[in-house]
Amino acid sequence: MCYEFKLTKVKKIGLILLSTVCALNLGAQKPIYQDTAQPIEKRVEDALARMTLEEKIRLIHANEIYSFWGVPRLGIPENHPTDGPLGLRPEMKWNAPVHEGISGDSCTSYPALVCLAATWNPEMGRLYGKSYSEEALYRNKNIILGPGVNICRTPLNGRSFEYMGEDPYLTSQMAVSYIQGVQGNHVAACVKHFAVNNQETNRADINTIVDERTLHEIYLPAFKAAVQEGNVWMVMGAYNKYNGQHCCHNQYLLNDILRKEWNYDGVLASDFGGTHDTKEAIFNGLDLEFGTAIDSIESYDNYFLAFPYLELIKKWEVGVKELDEKVRRVLRMMYRTNMSADKPWGSLASPEHADDARKIAEEGIVLLQNKDNILPLDISRLKRVVVVGENAVTKMSCGGGSSEVKAKYEVLPLDGIRNRLGNKVEIIYKPGYSSAVEPEENEKLRMEAVEAAKLADMVIFVGGLNKQPDQDGESWDRKSYELPYNQNELIEELAAVNSQLVAVMISGNAYAMPWVKKVPGIVQAWYAGTESGNVIASVLVGDVNPSGKLPITFPVSLKDNGAHVLNAYPGEGKKVEYKEGIYVGYRWIEKQKIKPLFAFGHGLSYTTFKYGNATVNKKNMHDVEGLVVTVPVTNVGTREGAEIVQLYVCDDKSSLPRPVKELKRFSKVRLAAGETCNVSFSIDKDALSFYDPELHRWVAEPGKFQFLIGSASDDIRTKVSFELE
Amino acid sequence: MCYEFKLTKVKKIGLILLSTVCALNLGAQKPIYQDTAQPIEKRVEDALARMTLEEKIRLIHANEIYSFWGVPRLGIPENHPTDGPLGLRPEMKWNAPVHEGISGDSCTSYPALVCLAATWNPEMGRLYGKSYSEEALYRNKNIILGPGVNICRTPLNGRSFEYMGEDPYLTSQMAVSYIQGVQGNHVAACVKHFAVNNQETNRADINTIVDERTLHEIYLPAFKAAVQEGNVWMVMGAYNKYNGQHCCHNQYLLNDILRKEWNYDGVLASDFGGTHDTKEAIFNGLDLEFGTAIDSIESYDNYFLAFPYLELIKKWEVGVKELDEKVRRVLRMMYRTNMSADKPWGSLASPEHADDARKIAEEGIVLLQNKDNILPLDISRLKRVVVVGENAVTKMSCGGGSSEVKAKYEVLPLDGIRNRLGNKVEIIYKPGYSSAVEPEENEKLRMEAVEAAKLADMVIFVGGLNKQPDQDGESWDRKSYELPYNQNELIEELAAVNSQLVAVMISGNAYAMPWVKKVPGIVQAWYAGTESGNVIASVLVGDVNPSGKLPITFPVSLKDNGAHVLNAYPGEGKKVEYKEGIYVGYRWIEKQKIKPLFAFGHGLSYTTFKYGNATVNKKNMHDVEGLVVTVPVTNVGTREGAEIVQLYVCDDKSSLPRPVKELKRFSKVRLAAGETCNVSFSIDKDALSFYDPELHRWVAEPGKFQFLIGSASDDIRTKVSFELE
Repeated sequence: MCYEFKLTKVKKIGLILLSTVCALNLGAQKPIYQDTAQPIEKRVEDALARMTLEEKIRLIHANEIYSFWGVPRLGIPENHPTDGPLGLRPEMKWNAPVHEGISGDSCTSYPALVCLAATWNPEMGRLYGKSYSEEALYRNKNIILGPGVNICRTPLNGRSFEYMGEDPYLTSQMAVSYIQGVQGNHVAACVKHFAVNNQETNRADINTIVDERTLHEIYLPAFKAAVQEGNVWMVMGAYNKYNGQHCCHNQYLLNDILRKEWNYDGVLASDFGGTHDTKEAIFNGLDLEFGTAIDSIESYDNYFLAFPYLELIKKWEVGVKELDEKVRRVLRMMYRTNMSADKPWGSLASPEHADDARKIAEEGIVLLQNKDNILPLDISRLKRVVVVGENAVTKMSCGGGSSEVKAKYEVLPLDGIRNRLGNKVEIIYKPGYSSAVEPEENEKLRMEAVEAAKLADMVIFVGGLNKQPDQDGESWDRKSYELPYNQNELIEELAAVNSQLVAVMISGNAYAMPWVKKVPGIVQAWYAGTESGNVIASVLVGDVNPSGKLPITFPVSLKDNGAHVLNAYPGEGKKVEYKEGIYVGYRWIEKQKIKPLFAFGHGLSYTTFKYGNATVNKKNMHDVEGLVVTVPVTNVGTREGAEIVQLYVCDDKSSLPRPVKELKRFSKVRLAAGETCNVSFSIDKDALSFYDPELHRWVAEPGKFQFLIGSASDDIRTKVSFELE
Repeated sequence: MCYEFKLTKVKKIGLILLSTVCALNLGAQKPIYQDTAQPIEKRVEDALARMTLEEKIRLIHANEIYSFWGVPRLGIPENHPTDGPLGLRPEMKWNAPVHEGISGDSCTSYPALVCLAATWNPEMGRLYGKSYSEEALYRNKNIILGPGVNICRTPLNGRSFEYMGEDPYLTSQMAVSYIQGVQGNHVAACVKHFAVNNQETNRADINTIVDERTLHEIYLPAFKAAVQEGNVWMVMGAYNKYNGQHCCHNQYLLNDILRKEWNYDGVLASDFGGTHDTKEAIFNGLDLEFGTAIDSIESYDNYFLAFPYLELIKKWEVGVKELDEKVRRVLRMMYRTNMSADKPWGSLASPEHADDARKIAEEGIVLLQNKDNILPLDISRLKRVVVVGENAVTKMSCGGGSSEVKAKYEVLPLDGIRNRLGNKVEIIYKPGYSSAVEPEENEKLRMEAVEAAKLADMVIFVGGLNKQPDQDGESWDRKSYELPYNQNELIEELAAVNSQLVAVMISGNAYAMPWVKKVPGIVQAWYAGTESGNVIASVLVGDVNPSGKLPITFPVSLKDNGAHVLNAYPGEGKKVEYKEGIYVGYRWIEKQKIKPLFAFGHGLSYTTFKYGNATVNKKNMHDVEGLVVTVPVTNVGTREGAEIVQLYVCDDKSSLPRPVKELKRFSKVRLAAGETCNVSFSIDKDALSFYDPELHRWVAEPGKFQFLIGSASDDIRTKVSFELE
């Protein structure tokens, strides 16, 4: 055959050929795995069928600390997770969590998840997920390693700021909305850490002993909701062991519960370096293995689900059935994310995202105490304000472990206060204490602050915890429930010289307040992200009417916490037994009839809400189908505000002991001054049930139930009862 | 207003909300700049209108050594170029060309561009561009910094292997096809280095003096073709100066020629650190500035088109008109590439790509000499073959500067020979020389090789150049035309003891062969990429019938090169004057009536082609419209083979001196044994023209032209003449 390339009119031929190429790209029959018109499951099977054994093995383990192999031959991309639920983690060296140092990864710092939980507003969860996932998309990340949904069992847990409080129901609702926000943008959320990872002390290998009922009632519901209601695409196993077996390859948690009981079709990833045994990983439900820091000459191919797995297959010690299933799950997640044709462009560190972070923080800040309406500040009466405290000038987005972010900016509390008050009021700043100096020098700082406080119309103390070792942060727990750096002494002295004292507390967790009666205004501001300082100022002056409520109990001391009282934290040696069982947080407080410092669900407003009488549409029924509880809530104050109406269920009598009451519904309503809203709650059987460990399932026993409705767990305003027949 | 989030049936509501989010994503009116249904120019203007001054400034300069700022706020992504025309450059540290060390960047090594040029087959150029751009897509790169089209003025130029030979027409054709292959996949090609960057010695600031005619006839045509026929989306400026002004902001080259004369609408990027003056860069056509290595605490924001530009604007010293135009050009390129909804998935280091690299290499390898038909090897007659030479065991893909690649694999020549012959023939390897040892040790190696050669049926020498300093590579020129490491002596001695000697020469350039008459078989194998060794073996045994032809002249010595003879290389001080003018390569050789070692266009086959008489459809005309030259070519040998039919134009008489002949058309035809093909060439006015520096334009003067058609520049088989009236 004589073929000839006619090159005599290259210009014209060239153009024709180019358009032919384009036309071919568009028109040619794509293989099924690349064909967006085909259903995902068909594409998964087609891709799987094309892959070699080696390619399958590669797809299920990391090739860098924050990257997973794709299938380069087939064009199946690498998976790129971004660490942490609070915003993008800075780009890292390939083999260690050490910052690369590039400039393109500055991002929005979102409020800590405990602050999100304090909004009690799933719309904020959805906004959070949507906004953050747009940042992930911009940086080419298809997986967000969050939300964290581990229950706050002890106020000492270093990572509580990354989680969403002590209540399974509140955590579930907030997690589901976050996940939906993330995944609506074709980014996978990765709910973590599955399961019973409730302390950092000895986290790598502590054996957590939890009875079956407690596991299902307290520690699993948020994961279950993430899977069944949030349809989450990825779950991360925990570092610790559960009942003797590492959580990342735990037969009961992963095979029996996650896959079989919950019908989970997504990916179960290990925590970083959380895998310990190849065979357990193969058979006990791990799909995707994260490595951890390695020497630059080492390879991630030597991890458990990498070459060692391949070798077992080649020696015929294990088959490929499990491998195929893992690959299917990874591919399925990829078709939903980085292989989706529908994923948007995303955007990074935009004013819109800062605004999202601001909105969430505004709804999450909790006004704990407001004696004599010291807040909002009356600027017209102020001439000189002294701001005291290291946290007024400390950036909080950049520490804390894997949830660190490199914020494009973070407004410091002092700057926020100056921005808002500074042109009308003289603002004087005194550190009062420092985390970086010896005690004697702190004394000098304290004296200077107290002297300044004497001459001020108002003192704003900005303290709390920070993200230094042994405070809020990953890989350690706090060593004490007390505030560090002699802050208590400082606050007492400030209160002694100036009664016009407001404490703005920055922390991701509860702490002791021995000075609580001496400080008229207390604001729990959490870690509030990029717009932190501006939000704090807005709340202080009343531009924003606070509407957050505590997602955690603030006990007076650790003696009011079950795990601590029962000496069940941090365990003995490498074992911790959750002796308090289901009595976590307010469940313990109420069982023991303890008065907390601030109760679960507590949070004040600059307006006042009055509750009418709750009604229920049926007093007794054989089934709860169609059961609705309604309560009228009125804003009886003079300004608009939002109230979080909480419904707790009390089972008057049951075959197993139950908590005094349990949160089962809530609703945040925004009301103009004078406005009334009928808040309705549909009740289902789940809301009445407990987990029966004998039957291994949830049970709603016939009998009388009370629906307690109120403004906080310790502030029930109305009750109504119902009998299940 | 009373609004309430009904959270009572989260599961159902959640699903509805999620689908609403999705629907919104699809249905919501997108802003014009994100709307794929809008024309690119409209989207460019819309994006431009939304950008702040600072965002515009950021878009036009690097934020890492291999990354450019996007507009994070608007979701406009970063630009990620991959260096080098020969395959993906490994991932680098953000601030220096130092390998990151990741494992996911192993790729296909494509043959050097000089090898591609030696195919004389634009289909191979298109395949090269298509294949490589798929690798770029997989690694999320939207720009390929190639092809290199600088004309080979001297065989000493260190980067000649990255370019496509000495002829403007051949280079143009190959560049256009490469660009079309790349850009058909929505990856920008970046043709480089514009212009007259023909040596590495003093490249950063040497002032190149070239007369206007030479510039237009020799050094610009490939760039012009890239722009006007290839529609290239990016051009890279050169390091050197042209007529006293740096090429990256050269008024004549960029404003007068590129933009005004050629109507270029794409991006002019600097070479890395090739910018030297902010104001010149602003006004003289630079659009996008690459930085170079910086200290980790420095910032790319301090480069010329970054903060210094912003400052000039803020001081009202310059306006924003030029900035807007630069931003438009960058955005336009982005809409064509990383912001195109049509870009395919890509794939990396696939067997298909290795096959592409192999095909190109098979067509590019040139059989220079084949006395007594020593090739193809008759395996049945061979018992013991000695392979000699360091290049038989040297990987060539990993060096050479910015064109380095990290090949997933590269088959070494020795391995290729062993793969093909090893189970039938005893293969013995002797280094013969080493680049790493002292001369006396080399002598020992030589003696060992010669001893082994004595006892062999056949000696295959695999030598040539390599990518070590002062050989083929970026940032240096070769110091000598001779082969290094005493290879000449070794080859002479091998030839003396064994007449059955084949030399496989690995190099990207010409070199002296004082032993040419003593070595019956000479194969020019270039740097042939991933499948190198296999391709060489295929050619040696005749699985592949060689069909490449030289895109460069091999002169006997540098005395046969105009630049060297006229002492016009490497210039005096920081100035080099192209005194030889248009007489580059074969144009010099023919003008001076020199017999080259191997001529431009030379290359043998295992079959024989016979040319019939050329005919022309019109003997004389007022215009060349419709003029066609035809020649029958017959494969008179016994096996299939491909011939590159070359048409040179000779202007019998002209007002300005012209070369003896110039390549104006070529066609590669594949013919079965005994088959004849009529090869036709359409001739246009450009093919007859020269550049008149008085008139500043191309001129086709009336008079007699001859069309010389043949198998090489020194092997014209048939002629036909034509008169332009």
